[in-house]
Order: sequence, then structure tokens, then C-alpha cells
Amino acid sequence: MQTIPRTPYESDHLLLDFIETKNLNWDFVLVCKTGSISSPEEDKRLQYLSALQKKGFKIKKVKDGKITFYGVWALAIIFKKYAQLLNNPDKSYLSKEEEVSPTSRIRIVHFFLSKTAIESNGKQENLDDLIKVGVFETAFPLHTKDQTGEDLKKSWARWRDLLYFQPIEEIRSYYGEKVALYFAWLGWYTTMLLYAAACGIIVLFYGLILHYDNSQISNEICAANDTIMCPLCDQNCPYWLLSDTCTYAKAKHLFDNEGTVFFAMFMAVWATVFLELWKRARAKTVSGWELYSWDEDEEELALELINDPECEIQKHEHSYWRSIVVLFGVCAVIAVLIGIAQALVIYRVVVTVSFTLSSWEFLREKANTAAVMSGAVLHYLTIVIMTKVNRVVATYLSNLEQPRTFTERENNFTIKVFIFQFVTHFSSLFYVAFFLGRINGYPGNYVRIAGHWRLEECHPSGCITDLFIQMCIIMLLKQTLSNCVEYLSPYLSYKLRIFKERRSREPAEEGSEDIAAECWRRNYRLGPVNTFSLFDEFLEMVIQYSFTTIFVAAFPLAPLLAFLNNMLEIRLDAIKMMRLKRRLVPRKANDIGIWLQVLEAVGVLAVITNGLVIAITSDFIPRLIYLYIYGPCAKGSAEGINCLAGYVNYSLSVFRTKDFENLTQISEALYTNVTECRYRDYRSPDDYSFSSQFWHIFAARLGFVILFEHVAVCIKFIAAWFVPDIPQQVKNNNLEQKKKHLLEELSKVTEE
Amino acid sequence: MQTIPRTPYESDHLLLDFIETKNLNWDFVLVCKTGSISSPEEDKRLQYLSALQKKGFKIKKVKDGKITFYGVWALAIIFKKYAQLLNNPDKSYLSKEEEVSPTSRIRIVHFFLSKTAIESNGKQENLDDLIKVGVFETAFPLHTKDQTGEDLKKSWARWRDLLYFQPIEEIRSYYGEKVALYFAWLGWYTTMLLYAAACGIIVLFYGLILHYDNSQISNEICAANDTIMCPLCDQNCPYWLLSDTCTYAKAKHLFDNEGTVFFAMFMAVWATVFLELWKRARAKTVSGWELYSWDEDEEELALELINDPECEIQKHEHSYWRSIVVLFGVCAVIAVLIGIAQALVIYRVVVTVSFTLSSWEFLREKANTAAVMSGAVLHYLTIVIMTKVNRVVATYLSNLEQPRTFTERENNFTIKVFIFQFVTHFSSLFYVAFFLGRINGYPGNYVRIAGHWRLEECHPSGCITDLFIQMCIIMLLKQTLSNCVEYLSPYLSYKLRIFKERRSREPAEEGSEDIAAECWRRNYRLGPVNTFSLFDEFLEMVIQYSFTTIFVAAFPLAPLLAFLNNMLEIRLDAIKMMRLKRRLVPRKANDIGIWLQVLEAVGVLAVITNGLVIAITSDFIPRLIYLYIYGPCAKGSAEGINCLAGYVNYSLSVFRTKDFENLTQISEALYTNVTECRYRDYRSPDDYSFSSQFWHIFAARLGFVILFEHVAVCIKFIAAWFVPDIPQQVKNNNLEQKKKHLLEELSKVTEE
Repeated sequence: MQTIPRTPYESDHLLLDFIETKNLNWDFVLVCKTGSISSPEEDKRLQYLSALQKKGFKIKKVKDGKITFYGVWALAIIFKKYAQLLNNPDKSYLSKEEEVSPTSRIRIVHFFLSKTAIESNGKQENLDDLIKVGVFETAFPLHTKDQTGEDLKKSWARWRDLLYFQPIEEIRSYYGEKVALYFAWLGWYTTMLLYAAACGIIVLFYGLILHYDNSQISNEICAANDTIMCPLCDQNCPYWLLSDTCTYAKAKHLFDNEGTVFFAMFMAVWATVFLELWKRARAKTVSGWELYSWDEDEEELALELINDPECEIQKHEHSYWRSIVVLFGVCAVIAVLIGIAQALVIYRVVVTVSFTLSSWEFLREKANTAAVMSGAVLHYLTIVIMTKVNRVVATYLSNLEQPRTFTERENNFTIKVFIFQFVTHFSSLFYVAFFLGRINGYPGNYVRIAGHWRLEECHPSGCITDLFIQMCIIMLLKQTLSNCVEYLSPYLSYKLRIFKERRSREPAEEGSEDIAAECWRRNYRLGPVNTFSLFDEFLEMVIQYSFTTIFVAAFPLAPLLAFLNNMLEIRLDAIKMMRLKRRLVPRKANDIGIWLQVLEAVGVLAVITNGLVIAITSDFIPRLIYLYIYGPCAKGSAEGINCLAGYVNYSLSVFRTKDFENLTQISEALYTNVTECRYRDYRSPDDYSFSSQFWHIFAARLGFVILFEHVAVCIKFIAAWFVPDIPQQVKNNNLEQKKKHLLEELSKVTEE
Repeated sequence: MQTIPRTPYESDHLLLDFIETKNLNWDFVLVCKTGSISSPEEDKRLQYLSALQKKGFKIKKVKDGKITFYGVWALAIIFKKYAQLLNNPDKSYLSKEEEVSPTSRIRIVHFFLSKTAIESNGKQENLDDLIKVGVFETAFPLHTKDQTGEDLKKSWARWRDLLYFQPIEEIRSYYGEKVALYFAWLGWYTTMLLYAAACGIIVLFYGLILHYDNSQISNEICAANDTIMCPLCDQNCPYWLLSDTCTYAKAKHLFDNEGTVFFAMFMAVWATVFLELWKRARAKTVSGWELYSWDEDEEELALELINDPECEIQKHEHSYWRSIVVLFGVCAVIAVLIGIAQALVIYRVVVTVSFTLSSWEFLREKANTAAVMSGAVLHYLTIVIMTKVNRVVATYLSNLEQPRTFTERENNFTIKVFIFQFVTHFSSLFYVAFFLGRINGYPGNYVRIAGHWRLEECHPSGCITDLFIQMCIIMLLKQTLSNCVEYLSPYLSYKLRIFKERRSREPAEEGSEDIAAECWRRNYRLGPVNTFSLFDEFLEMVIQYSFTTIFVAAFPLAPLLAFLNNMLEIRLDAIKMMRLKRRLVPRKANDIGIWLQVLEAVGVLAVITNGLVIAITSDFIPRLIYLYIYGPCAKGSAEGINCLAGYVNYSLSVFRTKDFENLTQISEALYTNVTECRYRDYRSPDDYSFSSQFWHIFAARLGFVILFEHVAVCIKFIAAWFVPDIPQQVKNNNLEQKKKHLLEELSKVTEE
């Protein structure tokens, strides 16, 4: 960077008037490396600070070794203007606050800091740009040691408060509305999970008692030690006995029974009621905040004008072409993400075969495990990489849309990141749930990649087992790990910073006895935060919500695990925010914004997928069809016979081993001279075409999907109508206030 | 009614101060029969008028024979209060109107008139009650002879303006926002119908050119003069030849081909785009009306308080029990309405048989026609009766919900009446579309009512023909008739009133030369209107919109007929409002209210039913399955053979006539010694159980429904996202205004 010669005019202009007061509650602190006086950075710094000063800010400078702090404090005139523009007569009856609250102070100051720009080389550089080029290192508001802060530390940000309700009002007055709403929502979500978890446990116990040892189907499977099944892969897989899967079959019936159907229905209703009741809870929480007629757009506009009355307001812009580009961009990213999931599937198939043919015996024997393990590692890596890529692409696409306000930008960004992250996390799950083992063809005519590699088969005990295992891994392992990382990484880096600081501690040059400076140092030591800090927390929880609801039919324990996780998550976030990270810039909000729509979309998707899981992944429909149409009880009740007797045999098709393709090389280690083997499908034994039963069951599956979806949608609508969004009490209070205000106005006319 | 003795206090109290001015623009006119001075009615009347006077109204009395008019005119103080309460500083930059507009004047006066109550026998009686007990005959605002009124008569309410756009702004300044929005919406709907109509005509021509003489299927049917079909009814129905339906088969293929599928898709998109574009059109229309921050609730509250500062404001009330009762009430009414439709079906079945067995030969021969005709008459009667019943029930249920404001009450009422009317009009159509002929069993095992009466069969050429005929009747006959009635009934009754008046004309007692009185008489002569006048117009059009979109797949001409009808409807409504009816009390509104949600619901239903019509009612899916799986082209292209060759034979099952039940008595007039007859179904020729094809086709039908619905929903969401609800221009204007206002406020602070 070239040095700009300082003109006399500019030096005049830059005469800064640092103040020495010690007892102010400083609004914001800017930090930079202590530099030489004539460096271009210092130049820009002074230019920026002087611009601030002209707008009505007091600035205090403290040198502390290699670091220099600038404390910033706003004069009352700024807030007076703000109050005049927004607390106008109409709103006065809603917002009686005479003074600006501490959170509003920080918010407004932050707005001014980030909108103040200096001219450099003909272009405007604002605070973000200055931080990027190293003129400042960072800027942050301060954690205060006042009553609220201490209260929060004592009654919220501690592990031992785990079972208590959160002090939402205090969170609000310390971190602003947005953070308070996040915690209110999280608390609400956790409470609601309790009901879902209870229902999940009941369903599991129901399965345990009625189905574990008692089920006709698992009994038949366990007894089927003369049913030879076709091999599950091409290379040296043996024939196997159906009775080998006895234990799995028993376990499977814990979560694949009519209880699951009920539970899926319950969760569909739960997801709807969840949102409806959250709207009520939100209205109640927000009702005391006097934000009814608050308009974020108007506020941003007002601040913009206070900052610079001459400024050009950005107009609303919209272009259908840009929308189309964004739409295609989003679709392209989704296609890539799904492509990656497919590539992983192919990778596993190809690698398994290569390993089987490898010369290394260990690898040859453990081919399957090795392929699955390396696939899992690759999967994890793609998630980590794509998470970063997704953010970059989402930012780029959001900018393309030219959002006008910060909220608009945030909404656009949120939706895109959520969609991308959702696809990243769920595409492999969707494959396991609905495609794995269903697009494989049949013995003698397997579907093969590039005509060579046969696709993976489901777990021997049925396709729903795979889904169950996947969900287990995600809800147990992944969640625990990510919590540990989330807590330990800021904790360790905080400790590391303290350790480093102790080692490199130089005596402060001046004002080291200053309380304010001490406070600044303490805050500087904490972990950095940014605009996305809260967004990340939200994203994490909404992805968890998706996991909990979308495949809950295959894993009834999901709500319980989510509940336990969230109990920790709340305190973990609280401790992180209060003790390990700098203070977040407070933001005003009267709801959780676009996340509500995201949750609603997840709810709709959950209804669809749960319907599909029951219809397609589970054996619920075939069992039902057998029970009522093909089974022994179809023509009236048959005494002494279980109505599902014979189901296992009925659900398996017959294959003549002489019809195997050449690519299928069977390991004859266990069974020799097998002429017929069985496989799970409904095909004619003659030409292997789909049997009448297949189409019958298929029609029933589709019918169930239609029924499930429409019933769920109806329930959703009725619930939405039945539960008012705003409680009567809140509505009536508001009405009362309005009435009071109107009567005041009326008395003015009458007096005149 | 007993006479209340007049106390001296009351007579004092009732000293009315009638004024004699002739040149005021009177706001409202109250009319009553000229009665004796001491009658209890006269007493109440004076009491009421004196209450008005105390609130700041001037009243003028004109006796005109048997009729007495009271002109009411409001003093400025009322409007001053109104302006103070609602045009407060915050809103001033949105609403610069210094004076209250004529429509607002009438609206406000109407509010006061209807809220003013007198005490009688210990209970409050307001204007509505007084009209009910005959104290007043009616009350209405006046058609004015000012510029707007004349303009509207010249450029809107004339048949010759048929092809011109409507002067929405002038309608607004004469009838208020609500009426203006109705006509804006109606105009918009009509414009949009043009596109749908064009597409419908193209699809029809496509069918005409490609399918009328050229279709393999109709050729096969026409050639099938050796295919003997099973009889269509129990009593003396003959066997018939498939080739008998040759003409119908040809006609049917005009609207049952792949063009229809495209058209159904098109209409699903159309319905979505319709609503999205309407939102934009609305925003544009409303943008000049300065209603952005207008709040109906607040206005009603303000008026309430101006009327009586002491009044008790009704609180918001909500009870889950009441909601449940209302829900069950609505469900019960729907059940009754569907029951009536079913009763009509049973009526026709039973009556046909009775007529066939009747001793009167004429009736015996025309049994079918007689049953259909009497059924149609009965159907018409039930619609007429149920329309009245529905209103009463809807009013009752709406009152149960204890709505707080007028709008709330209107919304509750609207939804209920719409649902009831919808079910009344559509239940028989739904039966024809999805149940007729599909739940009939098969020869030898027919489904029978009470084990005796066989259900009706579809038209010999296929079930979609019945739906087509029904839609034809509704869109052509019913629409034309109802338009005639709608126009002629007020026209004739107006003429009748003039004729009567001329005959019974008595010389006016006083003030007959008075211009105002002359004007009142002229207005009194016009047809009465009420709060529901506009509601009825809306309901009529939304029901038409439902007919146009919901079964459009079976009748592609629906949009064209609706378009032609609406061209007339606009002018017809205009003429009726301007020339035949009294002036409607203007109402403020910034959108069409709950009707938007109703239209949205109809759009969703349209997607579902059109998908179902194509999947279930039409032969599209079976043809497709035959084409790709069972037909001659299934195994690669067969040269020289039409791919649908053999479809007709494939779609008919075989029945051995010896298996007929005893109840089936076949007229052997035409064909004797028939051993096998054919029927439309996919059943095995041996045991008449469903064949594999049946389940295959059934699965395909259900799959199509799922696909169609989900694709349509996706399109809906993308369209909703793609088309912004408010045009950029409107948004930017609003932003500009806000900025201007904020800068003004800001300059105030700076000046201080």
C-alpha cells in the first residue's frame, strides 16, 4: 500500500480530541495494532476516528503494549434524533421508554460505526473494509459488569441451572431481542421435545412388549433354517439362511410395527402444533417488549438518514432475470450435492469390488467394512468441505439478488444456506430410505453401474434397518461429537489466549490502572463473534429439528436424544456467550424471522417423508395386504392360526440359480448344489416379471402416501385454525392500550 | 306492542329542532310510514332522532303522502374528531386529505346511525332493531347527481362500454374502496380468463384436428359391431353393441386426450399465477389510496369512542369449546349437504325402477328420462332451499364464535357460507366425477342399494362424458339463466314500483317543490340494498371461479364461457348499482379480504381435482399403460401398426351371461342367445377378480395423482417466490414518501 502524502489541510482536519474520562460506560471499542505515527494505516485510522467525532462521538485512546484501544461513546444528540424519528406520537402509547435502552445504544452505535466511511484512493472504505485491510483489528461492544450481566451469569450460564427456565427478559435486556428470541425458541423446542420423547418411549416399549419375542414374523424368520437366500453381492458372497437374521428381525420389529405408524402420525401433528403453540408463546414473550408497530425497515431508514441526511437510499430492485439465475444457481448446487452423495454410493460399490479382488488378504477379507469405513470418512469430509463451499455460494447468490436491507440479505442468505446444508446432510439419508435396495433389479438381471458393478443391497433383515442405523449414528455419535467440538474449541482457544498473554505480557505504557482499559483488555481476550454467530446456532438447531422430525418413523428415539442434547445445548450456548465470547451486537426483532418459514417447510417435508417411510421403507403395507387379502384370515377368521402365518414365505420370490448372470460369482463355501434361492420381491417364478401382488401392494403403498399426506394437511389446517396465533390476553392488553391512547387524543379535540 | 305512557320529562327531552335548509347534501335519509302523533312508533322515532341531534346531526323532515322522510346531515365536529384520531402525525405523510371524502362521510354517518340506540322496555334498540319493529321503514344514503356519478353512468354503467376498462378510481370515489376492489378484481379475473379461454380453444382445436376422425380408439369402437356389451340396468335393459356409441366416442376424444392433461397443468399454473398477479394488480390499484397504515380495527375503535367515549369495548374472546362446536356444526352441515346429494342419487335409482314397473305405459317407456328430469328439478329445489338454510346456519355459527369486529364477523360468515354453498353446488359433480360407475361392482355381483336397486351406470361412451354434460349444463344453461334473473328481477321490480307510484300518487303535503325531497323520493323508488349485496356478487363470482377451475380438465370450454359471462356481468352489476338500486354504504378496504384465502383454497382444490379427473375419470392412464407396457409397441416399435391397436378389446372384460343374478332381467328384444357380454373393467374372465392389469393401472393412477399434486405445489411455490407481491414502483414510491417524512422530522430536531 502506498503512502499518501498528508496535506496540511488533512492534518488540520484530523486533529482528534481524545478524552480522558474514566467513568463512562463505553459503547464500543475499536482495537488496532500500535503502529508508527506516519504509516498509511494510522492515517486512515485517524481519518476514520475524526469522521466519528464529527458525528457526535467521544473517543478515548489507550495504548496497551502492542495493542491500542479506542473507546467510543456516543453523545445524546444521536439518540434524541432516533427517539424523535421513531418514537413519534403515534407510537408513544406503545413505547413509553424515555431513554434508549443499553442494547439499543450499542445497536445504534454499531450502525454508525459500520456506516461511517472514509475516502481512500477514490473509493469509500467503511469499518468492515478497514478491518479487512488491517487498519483496525476488530471492533466490539463490551460485556458489562452490571446487575443484568451478573444475574445472567448466576442464574443462566451455569450447568447447574440445567433444569430451570431461562430468564428471557434479562437475556433480552443484555443481548437484545434477537438472542432472547433464539433462547426462548430453543427452550420452547426443548419443552415440546419432552412430549415427543415420551411418546417415542411409549411406542418403543409397546414394540418391546408386544413384538420382541412374540411376533409371528420374527418367529417364522427364526424358524426358517431351510430358506436359502440369494447372495447379497457379486464377488464370492455365499448363499445364506433367512434364520441367520433372527436377532435383527426381532430388533427390527421394535420399530417397524403399527405403533410406528401411530408415532409418525403423532409427530406430524406434533410438528404442526409445535409451530402453532410457538406462535402463541412468541406473542406472549414479545407482548411486553412494545414492538407491535416496530418496523425494521423504517428503523434502518431512519438511522441511515440520521447518519447522513444526504445519503442516497438504495431503491427496491427486482429483476426476473436475476431471479431465474438465482433459481438455476440453487438448483445447480443442489444437483452437485446430490451428485456427491451418488458418487459416494458408487465409490463404495466400486471400492468394495476392488478390495475383494485386491492381493492383500486382510483387505480382501474385510473388503466390505473397509469400503464402508472409508466411505464414511469421505462422507464426513464432503460435509465439512461443502459446508464452507455452501456459505460462499449462498453469499454470492444472495448478493446477486441485490437485497435492500440487512434483513432482506439475511433472509436470502438463510434460506439458501439452509437448503444447501439440508441437502448436504440429508441426501445420503434419502438414498438409504427410499432408493437403497429398491432399484437393484433382481437375481439374474441386476442393475449394474457401467454394466459391471452391482448396487449395494439392504441389510439382510430389511431396508428399514439401514435407515435405523444411520439415524442412530447421526443422533448419538454426531450430535455428541459436535457438541464437544462446539464447547471445547472456544474454551481451549480462550485458555490458550490467556496463557499466551501471560507469557508475552508487557507493562502497559499508560493508563494501565484505568478501570475502563482493564475492562477492554478483558473483553479483547474473549473469543471473537460476528454477525453469523447467532445464525450458526440457529442453523444447527433447525438441522437437528429436521433430523428429529423427518425420519422419526424409522427411529422413535430421535426426540429423546434431541431433548437430552438440547438441555445441554442451552447452557452450553449460554456459557459460551457469557464467558467465552465477546458480547454480540444486540439486534431488535419481534420474531425469529425467516426461520419460522423454514420450520414450516421442514414440517411439511416431515409429513411427506414419514408417510413415505411407512409406505415404502417399512413392511407395514405388505403386512396389511397379506392380513386382509392374501393371508389365512382373508376369508373370515381362521381359528387357531395367526393371521400373519405364511407371510415370510409369501414375501419372498423364488429364483432358479441356473439363471444367474456370469458376473455373479457365488461363494459355495456353505451351501452347494443349490438350485433355487429366495429374494425379497414379488415376482413371478416363471419369467421374473412383477406379480399381481406386487402391483396390488404398490397401489396400496401409493394410496397410503396420498391418504397420509392429505389427512396430515387437513389436521394441519384445522390445528392452525383452532389455535389462535396470539393469546386473548395479549390481544386484549393491546386493545386496552389503543383505547387509552385514542381517548387521550379525543380529549384533546374536546378541550380545544 | 303496548303503548308506553309519555312522561313530561320525555316530551321535553324530545323537542326536535327540524331545519328547513334546502341546499345541503344530505348524508342519509331515514324513511317511515307517516303515523299518528301519539303512536308508540312515533314516540320511539322522536326519541331516536333526538338522540341523533344531540350527537351533532341536523335533521330535516319531509312528509310525502303516506311516507315521511327524515334527512340527516352531520356537523363538522364529528369529522374533526375522526381526523384527529386517525390522521395523526405519523399518518399525515401518508394521508394528506384535509377533508373527509364524500364516501367517508357516508360511512361515518352510517356508523353513527347504526350505533345510536334508544332504550325501550329496558333494552337497547338500535336502528336495525327499529327497522325490524317498523319504527322506520328503511335508511339509505343518496345517489348524487355530481360529476362522478354522471361520469360513471356515462362511461361505465352502459352496455356499450363492454369492451372498455373500468374507471376504478371513480368507482372508488363514488362507492368506496370495497366496491372498487370488487370491480377491479372482477375486471382482472375477466382479463385473465381471456388467456385461459384462448388455451382452452387451442386444446379443443387440437382435439378436433388430431382426434376427431383420426383416433385409433374411436375407429375401433365404431368398427366394433360384433362386441356385445352387458346391459346397463336391471329392468329390461337390452344388450347393446359397442359400435352404437361411435359418435359419442369420437366426441369424447375431443376432450379426453393428451391435450387435456396439458390444459389441466396449464390451468393449475394459471390459478397460481392468477393470484400472484392479482396481488400485484391490487397493490398498484391501492397504491394511490393512501391506505398503507390504515387499520380497520383501529378505525372501528375510534368511531366507537367518538360515538360514545364511555362505551365498553368488546374484548377479544375465544373459547376452544366454541371452536369445537363450530367445527362440528360445519361438519354436520357438510354431511347433511352430501347426504342430500346421495339421497338424490338414490331417488333417481329407485324412481327409475318404480317408473319402469309402473302401469302407465308412457311413464314406463320414458322411465329413465322422467327420473333424470324429476331428479334435476329436485336438485334445483334443494339448491334453492339449501342456499337459504345455509345462510341462516352460517349466521348462527358465526355468532357462536362471538366475533369482535364487523370484519371478523364478515370473515367468519363468508368462509362458512362459501363452504356450504360450495358443497351444495359441487357434491353432485364430485359424485359424477369420481364415484358414478366406479362403485357399481360387476355383472353378476352388482352393488345394490338395500340389496335391491342397482346403482346408475356411466354414459355408454365412458364416465367422463357424464361430467362433460354436467359442466355444459352448469356453464351454459345455469349461468345464462341466473344472469337473466339477476338483471330482470331488480329491473322489473323497479318498473313495477314506478307504475304503482304513478297510480297511487297523492299530492305531497308540503315541500313537494323541494329539490332535496324530490331526490329522496327518486332514491326511495330504487331497489333496496343491504350489507350482503356486495357479498352476494362476490360469492357468485367465486363459485363461478370454482366451476371454471375445478373441473376444467373435463370441460376445456369453461374459461371461454366464464369470460363471456363476466363481460356481461361487469356491466350488469354496474347498471344494477347505478340505475336500479339505492346507493351502497361505502366501505373502506385495502384488499378483497378473506376472499383471497378462499380463492387460494379453490386453487389448491382445483389442482387436486384436475389431477384426479385425469387420473381416475379419464382414460389417459390406461391408454398410456397400454401404449408402453401391454400394447403392440411395448417391445420396440412395430411397423405399420398403430400403437393403440387392440386397446378397446383390452379395456373390456368378459362376462358369462349364465352368471347373471336373478335380479337382472334382460330385455332380449335385440339379441338372443348371448352367452358372453363385455363390460368396462379389468377383471379375470374366470373368477371375475381384479386382474394384474387392474392393479398396475390403479398404481399408475395413484402415482399420477401424487406426481401431479407435488409438481403443481412446487410450481405454485416457485411462482409465489418468483413474482413479487408488490411491484417495485409501488414499493419505491412508498419508500420515497417515508424518507421525505423522516427528513421532515429530522429537520425539526436540528432546528430545536
